[in-house]
Amino acid sequence: MLAALDSETALVTLGLANSEVGTIQDLAPLLRGCKKAGALFHVDAAQAVGRIPVDVAALGCDLMTLSGHKLGAPAGIGALYVRDSAKFAPTMFGGPHESGMRAGTPNLLGAVAFGAAAEAAMNAMASESARIDSLAASLFARLRETIPGLRLNGPLAGRLANTLNLTFPGVLGESMLIALDLAGVEVSMGSACAAGAVEPSHVLLAMGRSAADARSSLRISLGWSNTAAEIDTVAEIIPAVWRRVADAEPLAEVSAR
Amino acid sequence: MLAALDSETALVTLGLANSEVGTIQDLAPLLRGCKKAGALFHVDAAQAVGRIPVDVAALGCDLMTLSGHKLGAPAGIGALYVRDSAKFAPTMFGGPHESGMRAGTPNLLGAVAFGAAAEAAMNAMASESARIDSLAASLFARLRETIPGLRLNGPLAGRLANTLNLTFPGVLGESMLIALDLAGVEVSMGSACAAGAVEPSHVLLAMGRSAADARSSLRISLGWSNTAAEIDTVAEIIPAVWRRVADAEPLAEVSAR
Repeated sequence: MLAALDSETALVTLGLANSEVGTIQDLAPLLRGCKKAGALFHVDAAQAVGRIPVDVAALGCDLMTLSGHKLGAPAGIGALYVRDSAKFAPTMFGGPHESGMRAGTPNLLGAVAFGAAAEAAMNAMASESARIDSLAASLFARLRETIPGLRLNGPLAGRLANTLNLTFPGVLGESMLIALDLAGVEVSMGSACAAGAVEPSHVLLAMGRSAADARSSLRISLGWSNTAAEIDTVAEIIPAVWRRVADAEPLAEVSAR
Repeated sequence: MLAALDSETALVTLGLANSEVGTIQDLAPLLRGCKKAGALFHVDAAQAVGRIPVDVAALGCDLMTLSGHKLGAPAGIGALYVRDSAKFAPTMFGGPHESGMRAGTPNLLGAVAFGAAAEAAMNAMASESARIDSLAASLFARLRETIPGLRLNGPLAGRLANTLNLTFPGVLGESMLIALDLAGVEVSMGSACAAGAVEPSHVLLAMGRSAADARSSLRISLGWSNTAAEIDTVAEIIPAVWRRVADAEPLAEVSAR
């Protein structure tokens, strides 16, 4: 990435944690390269904040975006951190709201809820991330035992604990997603922003997965409300559903259509 | 306004009801002129919707903006009506949300609340606007009796019933606003978007009021929750506060500082 920077580069924007596979990026070397090139450095921390410690001062980024609903606030509220020294021009014009940075009557209830959710997430982060880590590790270990050829996308360590992106051999992700939904288990394909898309995940393709593997992949996300009992249930349901879908609609036949 | 239009005009944007004085504009002749010039016609109906009947088909506008908190929804949610035939390009990019018109996870709770508030406002509009009209007329009549030289800004008819913009002779609006606030009566100066501004209202100046008169003007807005008993109370408090402020800080002395 650093090789692509030159004096014309105005802004570099990178995710702190990937939304589909959960990989946590070490941004420090990239940030140093950006500073050298004179580019502003923007961090998308939507997935990371509330799950891992995030410190804008230690990171040294110029801009950072946060998303309320990722840490328990209602959808529709977010935050943009702007370092004092960062040149920032608004893109919404009108009234002088939010110090002239964003015109429009602010979402007051959303902002209050976001603040409360952020505080709650911050206070619970250490214990909660350990708990989620252990639930996810247990789920993955049990699925790997019962589903031969199951593959974790992204690193085992250095990943957001709550995100398990898995390639299920011999099934179409869509078929499995629908069957799991009917069995009461909510999972996702690709990113939430692109839900409904039929294209294979660009993230998995960029990681070197084949289009076929990308189409056989699902994302399981754990959260505050998930319990060990639910993990026990899901660790039973997922292999059973996988076997049923793989038997009913073998991928080789689907591909040949 | 129509004289300013030519083939270069891309968009004309007008308010259906003015936010500071409540004047309802007859947009039909302006709309015909815009169509002739080939310009898109955008209507800001934030103040009007929920208070007077608004029909995009009858108006024939290309675009219309609505604001949730103006009709009882929480702040932070709005709507943009786009006629099928209107050329529309988004200004926020990213995910394919809202049919590609506005990227970003939508404010779901806000949208649901906006829908419920709009339905409630629509159902109650006829009775509620008659009720507010009578409360506002009674308040204005009583204030005019007790405050010599009081002036209504905007027309007596053809105005949103809930908006009373008044020039109080011989006082600074700020002083009166603070004194009323201490007495438990919430009023406003200028538009809410420019709250905190010390400049005289650009709306009142455009209507031909002097800067001194604009600085002596306050906006009283009535709403669903206001009762006849409150109007009785406020009709006592406002003249008393006006007399006290006018005596304590005569405007001639303030102006001479």
